[in-house]
Amino acid sequence: MSHTPAYAAQSAGKPLGPHTIERRTPGAHDVAIDIKFCGVCHSDLHTARNEWGNTRYPSVPGHEIVGTVTAVGKNVKHFKAGDTVGVGCMVDSCGHCDSCKAGEENYCENGFTGTYNGPAQADGGNTYGGYSSNVVVDEKFVLRITHKDDLAAVAPLLCAGITTYSPLRHWGAGPGRKVGIVGLGGLGHMGVKLAHAMGAHVVLFTTSPNKVADGKRLGADEVVISKDADQMAQHVGSFDFILNTVAASHNLDAFLNLLKRDGTMCLVGAPEHPHPSPTVFNLIMKRRAIAGSLIGGIRETQEMLDFCAEHGIVSDIEMIAMRDINKAYERMLKSDVKYRFVIDMQSLKDEAKAA
Amino acid sequence: MSHTPAYAAQSAGKPLGPHTIERRTPGAHDVAIDIKFCGVCHSDLHTARNEWGNTRYPSVPGHEIVGTVTAVGKNVKHFKAGDTVGVGCMVDSCGHCDSCKAGEENYCENGFTGTYNGPAQADGGNTYGGYSSNVVVDEKFVLRITHKDDLAAVAPLLCAGITTYSPLRHWGAGPGRKVGIVGLGGLGHMGVKLAHAMGAHVVLFTTSPNKVADGKRLGADEVVISKDADQMAQHVGSFDFILNTVAASHNLDAFLNLLKRDGTMCLVGAPEHPHPSPTVFNLIMKRRAIAGSLIGGIRETQEMLDFCAEHGIVSDIEMIAMRDINKAYERMLKSDVKYRFVIDMQSLKDEAKAA
Repeated sequence: MSHTPAYAAQSAGKPLGPHTIERRTPGAHDVAIDIKFCGVCHSDLHTARNEWGNTRYPSVPGHEIVGTVTAVGKNVKHFKAGDTVGVGCMVDSCGHCDSCKAGEENYCENGFTGTYNGPAQADGGNTYGGYSSNVVVDEKFVLRITHKDDLAAVAPLLCAGITTYSPLRHWGAGPGRKVGIVGLGGLGHMGVKLAHAMGAHVVLFTTSPNKVADGKRLGADEVVISKDADQMAQHVGSFDFILNTVAASHNLDAFLNLLKRDGTMCLVGAPEHPHPSPTVFNLIMKRRAIAGSLIGGIRETQEMLDFCAEHGIVSDIEMIAMRDINKAYERMLKSDVKYRFVIDMQSLKDEAKAA
Repeated sequence: MSHTPAYAAQSAGKPLGPHTIERRTPGAHDVAIDIKFCGVCHSDLHTARNEWGNTRYPSVPGHEIVGTVTAVGKNVKHFKAGDTVGVGCMVDSCGHCDSCKAGEENYCENGFTGTYNGPAQADGGNTYGGYSSNVVVDEKFVLRITHKDDLAAVAPLLCAGITTYSPLRHWGAGPGRKVGIVGLGGLGHMGVKLAHAMGAHVVLFTTSPNKVADGKRLGADEVVISKDADQMAQHVGSFDFILNTVAASHNLDAFLNLLKRDGTMCLVGAPEHPHPSPTVFNLIMKRRAIAGSLIGGIRETQEMLDFCAEHGIVSDIEMIAMRDINKAYERMLKSDVKYRFVIDMQSLKDEAKAA
């Protein structure tokens, strides 16, 4: 066991603050990782504040982890000390259900173990995430990172990247396909970059006219102001696929109407208050579908990281110190970040040393 | 032009009654059909009573037509006088959009022409359906019927049959697949028969314990009382596909939860009042989808008719006389029919002769 500096929420109403956690001594299949950077996901905030009602405290969020291997267990085959690696949203799964056997641990039928908030496979207990100086993870859930620099901006690929990459691949974004991305935040800006790199014709939908230029810079072929009925009308029945990254309750019909026959709109955000019920007629008339998607499996996450390295894709980030996490949460709630906060974990190490 | 006895609604509040319509003289590509039987679809009632707000009066419903060819135009290649034929929900479409070119006229991007209520391709005007003694239809929209007997019970295949066959085929109902059918009415009883004949493991969901025996007789391997939470819980995460035939507003989540990873629930009924908004989380956690489907294309309708003839499938029907249509509508509203009314059109011909 090792005493590890971390930042934790002690209860739903408390801000995050310094806390010490125990990390297990690496077992035969484990990889010990010195954490360099950790991205800040909206799920971190939901969990820290118990907004999904299932938080185990103390809660140490963080599941967009990039670091360096410091030690490996004797049976570890694919990693060695000094390697640059990543850890995403999962650190374990049952390993024997149909989804796990298909390499889709994200859909583990017995429930995967989250990088934070558990439940641990062994005892259903808590797990502690990347707002900490190090982590110990079974090598099956460790990703290889081949980006040569800008490693802080690689961190958000581990959640925001795979959450958008997986549905774009699953529903066939690529050359000759018209793909919509709804919302330009942490997820949406990755969706635009990835769909563009896959070769699709990319249309960004945003409510903010001041995001048009940025949408195009990120790779959108067109940017549509979704509140503008005239602009929306020009795209009716024309999309093969729409990736909707907006978690706030909104009118889904406005986007369903833009799908072609057999088109799908995939939702990757779960709204706190339900969306208005979509109009069944809009599904029936063109055999359209509304679907959902949850991160991606380990094999696909590795594929995504390799794809991003090959195409020079990282996240657009703003680096913060660990001690500024509560302020960052407040800014995130106002969408005041382009487009992802990443914690420089050296700041936590320095703080722990000074204490 | 020919004077043709029919039954029509003259306005939303009026019952259907005798009315004479004009049928066009068959053109070079037309097939003239003496109507023997016409099924009674819930859409007939919605249209007669202007419940969708778009009814053209006088309104002559009926789009489950079986009859005998009496004459063909000079360019008609596939039909001759004496053939037994069917006409379903469509009598025309634009013919040049992507959906038409793909043989999916039901999704015609310029809007197909309904067998009743138009809009006619030429002038957007009205069309008159199968509650009449004869009809003239372009051969492209005429179906060949190879059933040797029980032709009255074939009629509902033209709408209830194809409406369930098409999504069952599209989403791959067949051996090794667990398929749910929600609701045992006109559509649902066809869904059970067809999914069973396709080789799927068929589970019927009904709210009525008194439909269990009938569900099994029709081909369901299991019947689940959908109000019984314990019975429902036994099927969580186990379905490849669910065909939901219930148009009344109901809780979709109860069925979404029964789908496997990548499973789809397809809706074929549009509710008058919206369903409660489905829980996005239930879509996301297993990459599930909610979709819709609308009848089927002409090629697929022919395939369905041939499949049914080969497997000895017809609808379970109750035959009525034309003059009893208003009573039949009232009984249909109470689901008091097993499982489809079919009008014996000889009754209309006799009535017209006596008048």
